[in-house]
Amino acid sequence: MIYDFGMPAPLARVVEMLASLPGVGPKTALRLGLNLLSRPAADTVALAEALARLHEQVGFCENCGCFAEQTVCHFCNDVRRDAQTVCLVEQPVDVLMMERGHGFRGHYHVLHGRLSPVDGLGPEQLNLAALDKRVASGLKELILATSATVDGEATAHYLARRFTSSGVKITRIARGVPEGGELEYLDEHTLSRALDQRVSWDATSI
Amino acid sequence: MIYDFGMPAPLARVVEMLASLPGVGPKTALRLGLNLLSRPAADTVALAEALARLHEQVGFCENCGCFAEQTVCHFCNDVRRDAQTVCLVEQPVDVLMMERGHGFRGHYHVLHGRLSPVDGLGPEQLNLAALDKRVASGLKELILATSATVDGEATAHYLARRFTSSGVKITRIARGVPEGGELEYLDEHTLSRALDQRVSWDATSI
Repeated sequence: MIYDFGMPAPLARVVEMLASLPGVGPKTALRLGLNLLSRPAADTVALAEALARLHEQVGFCENCGCFAEQTVCHFCNDVRRDAQTVCLVEQPVDVLMMERGHGFRGHYHVLHGRLSPVDGLGPEQLNLAALDKRVASGLKELILATSATVDGEATAHYLARRFTSSGVKITRIARGVPEGGELEYLDEHTLSRALDQRVSWDATSI
Repeated sequence: MIYDFGMPAPLARVVEMLASLPGVGPKTALRLGLNLLSRPAADTVALAEALARLHEQVGFCENCGCFAEQTVCHFCNDVRRDAQTVCLVEQPVDVLMMERGHGFRGHYHVLHGRLSPVDGLGPEQLNLAALDKRVASGLKELILATSATVDGEATAHYLARRFTSSGVKITRIARGVPEGGELEYLDEHTLSRALDQRVSWDATSI
């Protein structure tokens, strides 16, 4: 503890735990702790209750690995969504990001990680058994939406190879210039990829 | 809510409450919420319990207004401290900052604010009744450690006037060049104040 002098133990405890959160240093933790102490007690108690229930109320869908409040998530339960088109992502949070666009109406599959030999993460550490079953049951398309990093790319390659003989159509999300991106500030890899994978003008006016 | 799409309600609730903390925007709140969900449940429950007890366990000393776990704080209870020398500060957190130096061995008095006509804060909004009593009981020295802002300075002036006839010695914490401060980067007000209030060389070699 950095601020143990004269700080009441209950406050010190809260500050110490807050300081263990990502991006929260001891100074920020102290500021948050003091704020939680200065606001109405009911506010802080409400946050405490929400945190206490977080783990017991939020789990993962046994089918696709998304966040779920029941055994199956609301994507898998939604009959208006196309169960034959599955978008594969690395983390549950990636699903939230995809949904922001409101464009995709298929199902998801969350790997809960990516291949990373350095960190000892191989295929057996990923959520693949459920995916094998889904592919075997006859999917139309599997969209590989792993990240555009070395590990994400390697994971996509591995999965493409794994399911190549299954007959499912395998696609990879496009990479190129981000919306609003100025060429001036773009790295050369993105730019050369955007040039290589240029599409016919008609296809861009969707 | 910014991320309501596909996010389980219990997580959305936590994220929304975290986003109300100072310096925590929706993106940081989401990152913190996801971190709290991904770490062991016991960690998050421990934070929840610490928060639930924070307000009920931490109050203010009825004598000086510092943070206190009982009715009187551990500064006021410490017989090795000089009860005749009182350092007056604006906020409870200022006491923690003073104590970091380990140099002061007197008591404190927390105003819980400062005079600020713009915000409708006058003397009656401050913790002054208890201070009147302490001064009347015969203090040796009252150190005005309000902040070096316009409002903090005005508050110090007001208090100096209020207690001028009480016989207590009234002092103000020194202002000048901060430790490690390069003159090059210092504002002109601080520098001219440091020059005006220069002290004899002997006094600096403490």
